[in-house]
Amino acid sequence: MTPPSNNLIALEPKKVPAYVEAITESGGQIADLGANVKALIWTDYSNPQLLQQTLDQNPQLEWVQLPFAGVDAFSFLLDRPITFTSAKRSYSEPVAEHALALCLAMARVIPERVRATSWGRQFADSLFDEEVLIIGGGGIAEQLAKLLVPFRSNVTVCRKRPTEPFMPGFSGQIVGFEQLDEELAKAKFVVLACALTDETRHLMNAERFELIRSDSYLVNVARGEVVNQEDLVSALKSGAIAAAATDVTYPEPLPEDHPMWQLENLIITPHSADVLAMVTRLFADRLRVNVAAWVSGAELTGRVDSKLGY
Amino acid sequence: MTPPSNNLIALEPKKVPAYVEAITESGGQIADLGANVKALIWTDYSNPQLLQQTLDQNPQLEWVQLPFAGVDAFSFLLDRPITFTSAKRSYSEPVAEHALALCLAMARVIPERVRATSWGRQFADSLFDEEVLIIGGGGIAEQLAKLLVPFRSNVTVCRKRPTEPFMPGFSGQIVGFEQLDEELAKAKFVVLACALTDETRHLMNAERFELIRSDSYLVNVARGEVVNQEDLVSALKSGAIAAAATDVTYPEPLPEDHPMWQLENLIITPHSADVLAMVTRLFADRLRVNVAAWVSGAELTGRVDSKLGY
Repeated sequence: MTPPSNNLIALEPKKVPAYVEAITESGGQIADLGANVKALIWTDYSNPQLLQQTLDQNPQLEWVQLPFAGVDAFSFLLDRPITFTSAKRSYSEPVAEHALALCLAMARVIPERVRATSWGRQFADSLFDEEVLIIGGGGIAEQLAKLLVPFRSNVTVCRKRPTEPFMPGFSGQIVGFEQLDEELAKAKFVVLACALTDETRHLMNAERFELIRSDSYLVNVARGEVVNQEDLVSALKSGAIAAAATDVTYPEPLPEDHPMWQLENLIITPHSADVLAMVTRLFADRLRVNVAAWVSGAELTGRVDSKLGY
Repeated sequence: MTPPSNNLIALEPKKVPAYVEAITESGGQIADLGANVKALIWTDYSNPQLLQQTLDQNPQLEWVQLPFAGVDAFSFLLDRPITFTSAKRSYSEPVAEHALALCLAMARVIPERVRATSWGRQFADSLFDEEVLIIGGGGIAEQLAKLLVPFRSNVTVCRKRPTEPFMPGFSGQIVGFEQLDEELAKAKFVVLACALTDETRHLMNAERFELIRSDSYLVNVARGEVVNQEDLVSALKSGAIAAAATDVTYPEPLPEDHPMWQLENLIITPHSADVLAMVTRLFADRLRVNVAAWVSGAELTGRVDSKLGY
């Protein structure tokens, strides 16, 4: 990449103070959008149409930094001749922690303990020496694999491109999606941590809930649509799976009359794996890295591959 | 220790098949109690009086293996001229896992999510880079410190003898009880994992709940009596502490009319950190080690110091 003609950087639509500080400390200069501003940091989590409009009005833009790790909401924009970077891998630590918290909450039957008004049954499952299947081979998978090391869990990562580099020192196995069904039948814990793409939409459906171990625990920290929610409800009711926990649903927020709220073996967290305070700090860290790279003409971190969709 | 005169080992009062197998595989021979049986594996978790009676009737006993990690229930027997070994450090892994599960359940406000019937507030705390105080420097502390390594938590261990060896490679700090009050004021997570002794009884009392951070989380995987339960209830009601989680109470089971069942910021698990299935496997492992040591005259693992009470 050739060095940019200047260090002017637009920060839109919200000039979050932590981001202003990160940009200026890294050699960038905050500027209003205009003909000589080639870089845009986009800080809105809810309105991709506003970004579309901004891009239409600013054909000079060469680099756009998106605020999410997953870019599915922006997929209709990614074909433009612009370098898009996402926040991928930025928020992996808190999301992996949330996935672990949900695994342990199910293993230690915390929902049953929370509802109890008397001493309960002696029951607990453990992650020690257990089979854990992580679907998706990105930053969350790497961070979760790190958190699982002291548990000696037998970790299998199922990803689109199994031969690509994964975490250095990883001692588990890496397989492609053609082995997913086989691995689902073995795992005690299944964690969904993949991008939402045409291939992963409704990946967990009725057929796969038949394959899964009936004593297994499912965690979704990916996107709601990776699971067919109707099929999940059936599987939880029939006992095809012991319990599930999801940080994501469709739609979000999940309506109050949705049957998922009624299931005792389902934990729903409101997309709170990486809450704003965590995200702000971690996104500012990413901005420091990328603004410094942009200003010096170095490689940007988190480039989006529009064909892969992440 | 001189080699024993024989390899006869009594297994009382329950001849659990996994223990029979562990003993015989390790060179021991199961025998009924009698004049030439010097070793006793005690498998009862509930009735110390029965052990007292057995010891009275069998003055020839030289070694008694107790089934608990904590020996407070047997403290009135420990002055006898017998080598007592406890299961200390045997069950550390599942108990440390339970402590971590409870820390994360509070940080990720799982009780609030479990009770929710609609999308909730965006809130989550994290263990990453946080201050964790572990009270007690035994096996649970070591295992928990291991589980916390990938979180880069800043771990402080408060123990009776701070200069004794702790886990190799431990990068946190170790302090004595004279620094407890100071450390309590700093920690975001406080985990009780000490033996119950005269010094630790009601260690967490009204005074200390005043010192503790009001945004902190308390976990008790030690013994119920390490906490003054009345003071805990007050602290949880007044907001002197954000939340607590306990695997132990007094009495156990906790009566149904106890006010602790009514607190929304308290998780009670029914002494299920190390459930029977886990304990049986791990105690059998300990028996393999100790029977082999006994038969060959080597050092026994888990010797109880009657003066220290653990």
